[in-house]
Amino acid sequence: MTTVTCDLSVSLDGFTAGPHPTRERPFGDVVGTGEVLHSWMFDHGSAHADEIAGILRAGAFVMGRGMFSPDRGPWDLGWRGWWGDEPPYRAPVFVLTHHERAPLVMDGGTTFHFVTGGLDEAVARAREAAGERDVSVAGGATVVNACLAAGIIDELRLHVVPAVLGLTGGVRLFDGVGRHTFEAVGARQTPEVTHLVYRRRRAD
Amino acid sequence: MTTVTCDLSVSLDGFTAGPHPTRERPFGDVVGTGEVLHSWMFDHGSAHADEIAGILRAGAFVMGRGMFSPDRGPWDLGWRGWWGDEPPYRAPVFVLTHHERAPLVMDGGTTFHFVTGGLDEAVARAREAAGERDVSVAGGATVVNACLAAGIIDELRLHVVPAVLGLTGGVRLFDGVGRHTFEAVGARQTPEVTHLVYRRRRAD
Repeated sequence: MTTVTCDLSVSLDGFTAGPHPTRERPFGDVVGTGEVLHSWMFDHGSAHADEIAGILRAGAFVMGRGMFSPDRGPWDLGWRGWWGDEPPYRAPVFVLTHHERAPLVMDGGTTFHFVTGGLDEAVARAREAAGERDVSVAGGATVVNACLAAGIIDELRLHVVPAVLGLTGGVRLFDGVGRHTFEAVGARQTPEVTHLVYRRRRAD
Repeated sequence: MTTVTCDLSVSLDGFTAGPHPTRERPFGDVVGTGEVLHSWMFDHGSAHADEIAGILRAGAFVMGRGMFSPDRGPWDLGWRGWWGDEPPYRAPVFVLTHHERAPLVMDGGTTFHFVTGGLDEAVARAREAAGERDVSVAGGATVVNACLAAGIIDELRLHVVPAVLGLTGGVRLFDGVGRHTFEAVGARQTPEVTHLVYRRRRAD
């Protein structure tokens, strides 16, 4: 049966990005936010090969519009998102949006599908596309929080970097999700990141 | 040299207690908050003997008034706090308050000293009382956040329970502390709690 997973690089204070992203600065206007959160993947990737493989193993992905583009309103079709010509997903990616857009076929197996019917539709289409493989909720925190609140995520994998970002804007993981208990099933610490794995239990 | 430590039982969403504590409900009016956060100590204490010993090893403690009493305003001298006749600290405890009160000598070696001169005075007095031993910041989150913001805490030991409390009031760990980086020096996972140890680095 399909498992819905979610991998998030998160600061100790629960941030996955800063406020005010732009095309040039996907992690917002606080310099260094993206580097703090993700350098473990890029500078020390071989030490985290299992976790990175886990992130990319899913058969389909769901992401918020903010993970694809900072633009508001109708699509600028000349901008094909932050992920370059060959995004790392190599699978169908269902992007939540209020604006229709034809699917965008990228190199390497990634196709972005734009879903205007809400979270349930995006997850249903991702499950169908994934077949027996996992569906991964790719972020950002707003979409992850909506999924946590709805009990959609079966396995939450937090990659906690040892830093407090202290941002005064932006969305924090777990904001407004209500009360939930998890089963802690994995922890692996390295100097640059602590990998924590939680499985969902029923809400209290 | 004295190390300033801080042990906190914390939910995944960064809560150490709920809002609206009373004498009868030290962890606030959301039923079960204290149990979720602290049952690892009481129901599974032998599995966490090293961590519990670490919490209580300090030579002196600093705590906020809220950790001693929920009352506002002048002291009710008939109420000797939440900790019973024989508190677990067995050392001097410096309680931050705006209201003078004579020291309160408890059974078993704990004396509560009431400090009206602010955080720096409380920490200075605790350092002096601790001698070569550690000073521990005992909470709550408001005092811990003030200490983190001021760079006072050398070693932060988080005991993360696998639950999201989803509280809509109360103080979250790291709120308003600014930007800080730590060195991750320990992680131990058990089904009921994950012990994470961080050492302070200089602020960016």
